[in-house]
Amino acid sequence: MKLTVAQKIIKDHLVTGEMKKGTEIGLRIDQTLTQDSTGTMAYLQLEAMGIDRVKTKRSVAYIDHNMLQAGPENADDHKFIQTVAKKYGIYFSKPGNGICHQVQLERFSVPGQTLIGSDSHTPTCGGMGMLAIGAGGLDVAVAMAGGEYFITMPSIVKVELRGRLKLGVSAKDIILEVLRRCTVKGGVNKIFEYCGEGIKSLTVPDRATITNMGAELGATTSIFPSDENTKAFLIAQDREEDYIELKADDGAEYDEEIVIDLDELEPLIAAPHSPDSVYKVREKEGIKVDQIAIGSCTNSSFMDMMKVARILDGKTISENVSLVISPGSRQVLNMLAQNGALSKLVSAGARILESGCGPCIGMGQAPANEAVSLRTFNRNFKGRSGTVSADIFLVSPEVAAVSAITGKISDPRDFINDFDDIKMPERFIINDNMIIEPAEPGNDVEIIRGPNIKPFPRGEKLTDIVEGKALVKVEDNITTDHIMPSNASLLPFRSNIPYLSEYCLAPCDPEFPKRAKENGGGMIVAGSNYGQGSSREHAALAPLYLGIRAVLAKSFARIHRQNLINNGILPLVFKNEEDYDTIDLMDDIRIENALDQIDSDEMIVKNMTKNLEYKVITDLADRQIDMIKAGGLLNLIRESNMKNA
Amino acid sequence: MKLTVAQKIIKDHLVTGEMKKGTEIGLRIDQTLTQDSTGTMAYLQLEAMGIDRVKTKRSVAYIDHNMLQAGPENADDHKFIQTVAKKYGIYFSKPGNGICHQVQLERFSVPGQTLIGSDSHTPTCGGMGMLAIGAGGLDVAVAMAGGEYFITMPSIVKVELRGRLKLGVSAKDIILEVLRRCTVKGGVNKIFEYCGEGIKSLTVPDRATITNMGAELGATTSIFPSDENTKAFLIAQDREEDYIELKADDGAEYDEEIVIDLDELEPLIAAPHSPDSVYKVREKEGIKVDQIAIGSCTNSSFMDMMKVARILDGKTISENVSLVISPGSRQVLNMLAQNGALSKLVSAGARILESGCGPCIGMGQAPANEAVSLRTFNRNFKGRSGTVSADIFLVSPEVAAVSAITGKISDPRDFINDFDDIKMPERFIINDNMIIEPAEPGNDVEIIRGPNIKPFPRGEKLTDIVEGKALVKVEDNITTDHIMPSNASLLPFRSNIPYLSEYCLAPCDPEFPKRAKENGGGMIVAGSNYGQGSSREHAALAPLYLGIRAVLAKSFARIHRQNLINNGILPLVFKNEEDYDTIDLMDDIRIENALDQIDSDEMIVKNMTKNLEYKVITDLADRQIDMIKAGGLLNLIRESNMKNA
Repeated sequence: MKLTVAQKIIKDHLVTGEMKKGTEIGLRIDQTLTQDSTGTMAYLQLEAMGIDRVKTKRSVAYIDHNMLQAGPENADDHKFIQTVAKKYGIYFSKPGNGICHQVQLERFSVPGQTLIGSDSHTPTCGGMGMLAIGAGGLDVAVAMAGGEYFITMPSIVKVELRGRLKLGVSAKDIILEVLRRCTVKGGVNKIFEYCGEGIKSLTVPDRATITNMGAELGATTSIFPSDENTKAFLIAQDREEDYIELKADDGAEYDEEIVIDLDELEPLIAAPHSPDSVYKVREKEGIKVDQIAIGSCTNSSFMDMMKVARILDGKTISENVSLVISPGSRQVLNMLAQNGALSKLVSAGARILESGCGPCIGMGQAPANEAVSLRTFNRNFKGRSGTVSADIFLVSPEVAAVSAITGKISDPRDFINDFDDIKMPERFIINDNMIIEPAEPGNDVEIIRGPNIKPFPRGEKLTDIVEGKALVKVEDNITTDHIMPSNASLLPFRSNIPYLSEYCLAPCDPEFPKRAKENGGGMIVAGSNYGQGSSREHAALAPLYLGIRAVLAKSFARIHRQNLINNGILPLVFKNEEDYDTIDLMDDIRIENALDQIDSDEMIVKNMTKNLEYKVITDLADRQIDMIKAGGLLNLIRESNMKNA
Repeated sequence: MKLTVAQKIIKDHLVTGEMKKGTEIGLRIDQTLTQDSTGTMAYLQLEAMGIDRVKTKRSVAYIDHNMLQAGPENADDHKFIQTVAKKYGIYFSKPGNGICHQVQLERFSVPGQTLIGSDSHTPTCGGMGMLAIGAGGLDVAVAMAGGEYFITMPSIVKVELRGRLKLGVSAKDIILEVLRRCTVKGGVNKIFEYCGEGIKSLTVPDRATITNMGAELGATTSIFPSDENTKAFLIAQDREEDYIELKADDGAEYDEEIVIDLDELEPLIAAPHSPDSVYKVREKEGIKVDQIAIGSCTNSSFMDMMKVARILDGKTISENVSLVISPGSRQVLNMLAQNGALSKLVSAGARILESGCGPCIGMGQAPANEAVSLRTFNRNFKGRSGTVSADIFLVSPEVAAVSAITGKISDPRDFINDFDDIKMPERFIINDNMIIEPAEPGNDVEIIRGPNIKPFPRGEKLTDIVEGKALVKVEDNITTDHIMPSNASLLPFRSNIPYLSEYCLAPCDPEFPKRAKENGGGMIVAGSNYGQGSSREHAALAPLYLGIRAVLAKSFARIHRQNLINNGILPLVFKNEEDYDTIDLMDDIRIENALDQIDSDEMIVKNMTKNLEYKVITDLADRQIDMIKAGGLLNLIRESNMKNA
């Protein structure tokens, strides 16, 4: 059978299931990565698995999110992650070494391998020809412990790039064009696989910009072949030995096909408040800009920065603009420091931030009220910047740089003559002294656990009777941001579920956490698409801590449903949506014979207060039923370890 | 009469009073500076004075404190300051251009002139031979409007430096030695004037390190002569025309004398939790270090950074240390970027922060719990770092750099061979394109006022009967940090007195703000040394907003007392300290015939609830009595403007 690049990697790593679209498959994972906002929880879960050493080829723990450190919590978390990494055989990238995806691409990505990471932009390394997928922290912990990673076998979308980008048009515009055509919902259970003549003129970091922001399609991942450009990048990173050629078979079959003619593309811009609200820059030209931010895992590579430096060279930015630039990694920063580009940026009036996620995740540089901020980032959701009233636009580094000079949204084609002197380096500065190697062996390493790092809650085995009050009733489209808010004041507490749980669902019903505690737990009742948005596992862990046993909803978002199951919480879908209307707050809900009922696709749920019965759909795979029975995936793994011991 | 340097400048600027030690004098002010955490309030007060244009020779508004910007408040404040500066004839230094004191030293300081700034480290420019004094925001606003600045005519301490510093010993060790000898209380109403053979080997930035941290003595200011080194620095800054020679007359008389033999000095360290808890580095050698922070207005000059780069060149810092470096200004950063030193810092594993105050004011980089942090800063008060349980040590850049490599407190003399190749530049990079010039004229400039910027409260004219309940009763040694807390979560609200006032005295009695509002204001009862610590005017403005009419205390700290008077609040000292014990919370307090009584040095205060009378001391200068009668200095100025109009 003729295979695509993604299918080849899946085939090589398939442990469970068949490569049949829409069915569950289990993959062997070669590499994992974590960042610090999801990492502490993942490592607490890893510890709970009772292994001595990670079983992956390479696992790396990065610090790139919580780098402002307004209180001791972040530094405490960093110490915990550093020591746990040292003990368990994980490489530790110190704060300042760079954004996880950029550093992983530079130093660790290997074509043909699999990578999962506890960050939704893990597909970045698809630019290297890896199968790289964002996942929940527990999934990453399981993979580190040698377990499979389960996904739905995706369909493959062929994205054929023809021609060549014109001056002033860049990789960012390609992914913005894909988002314009497919929308943020267009990628569910799909892999976007790039090919065609046009990819030859895209460097690995260009490709990584595209696969990175492919996350905004809702896709499983995006991927490029591994070719001469891949080889050149690996040689420049002193890693030629990691190179293999990897391309789709002639005649490989795709499920969908998109063709983009690069010659026709022009600079694009995503307007507030969605990455798929895409326009031509020409259509938004002239809008006054207050802030410009260049960086993030999408656009912070050496070449991105060199283009910006070239545009700003000898110029002064508009007096009304605050321009912040975060090089994506220390390698990038150091290259710029050595070749004089950094001085050009500074001379023009740029503020240089640390190599980290920074303003992209609302960690600093919140714009003024009602300000316009132009960013080379990947998301412009309302309020994500830290300023609800601000308008965030997403653009390429070229658009950002020229607009910094003019003080308004501008088209780079009006300002740039050529970038001919900007070339990919034949050799990057190789210096891994901020990546701490694990101890060998790690037994003697003491794990430092600051007072903010609390044990995470553990599920309990399914009982035959599951009962409790309807503790909260929420509407449709509740996001994980509602369930577990993650603003600048709560982010430092990502390792402290007891503290976080006091804010669980607070945007919907601030009394819910108190009510849950007073009643010893119970049920959540929700509308449709419950748990959409970010993949954060905390949206399942906080309810678990509060004693939630089941969520009754009209429908669930995919990742959150899995997170609930992973933590032993029943996700139940009303067979008749109208039943939702009959439940009132504090009704007594009861499931009888749960241990029998769980084995079928439907269950009966009783509303004791109203004397009603509801049919609910469970639709759980056997593996998921085992998790629910065991009280979560971790318990299941421990049971299995004990049996094998 | 033979005069010292400080006395010469005072004589040249004396408007009111006589140069008689201990008496009040009013000085003409040439330059002012503000930073953003005190600046918004100062500029709101300037606006209230009804002038069109500042009357100083040079006024500069800096942004260097609130640069993390976790929410929109900071960017809003920055816009307000930028527009108000443009309108009123003030230069505006954009965020990223550097720390106010470093930039003022480089670009604006002029020997022989007077400078006041709304920041306690304003004496930094004493290294340039300026009379540079920290003051309240309202004092700075008055100076901008052309008014005098009033101080108590200080005594002069001669600090004679003999010999020359040995390798590994630096300017920081000189000021640590002065602090060791004189303590943090040793400088009240004194100017420390440096002289002697030893000053010849100290560059202007070295001298500025010493005068900067002279603030920790509680001194009025510190000052150096203006000599060949001063001239060389000004030439290197392309400002030769600002040079004048300035030295003490032979035979000038000093009130005290200190002699320091530089040859004998060795590397020193201030241990937790006070800048005068000074030891030899040798005595603390070997203590394990978790974090090292290099920068702040004390030690962030080009030469400081070059020494650090030289020590770190080719090395890797300890894996357990997080090293953060903030160059003091964009000039410094750019010099380092161009000469390769920045790359050396980055290669060794340093995290480069923005040019700003940063961790020194707890704005980020809070250490882990119970961590040891070595800092080149000026203050190590408990909790100031953002981590109450951390131990902060203060050291020179040399000690910090060698300790970063070893991971423990280390003596640089064991590691350094020479710094011979490190020389003061003959020409710094001159680029003022982040300093925005004021509009000429400014009438048309629209001031942008974000929703966080609230009008400040205004005092009311003294009435003949002053009465109210004792709304709060506090102990001895209450600091302005108690009265108006200033942590990372409250600092963004420095322009919003209504919001801040809800936290007024909260560490002592969280119910006080509510009680004050419910009772329409009243009195504060306090022990001795009320209002010690930071000079923040907010500690008077928040009580004013809450309707406080008088504070009855055993004694007051100097600056806070003046801030109360400036805002029309009566500072009353119990003649018999035991009277303090007779007042209970919510007692009715009443002053009759206040308009008559205010003119004498004592008043009678009645406790109506207890039927008692207290004698209290006011001890107000005529100027201060006028302020109290008018309901504060601003009202007084407006009255006087109206009379003159």
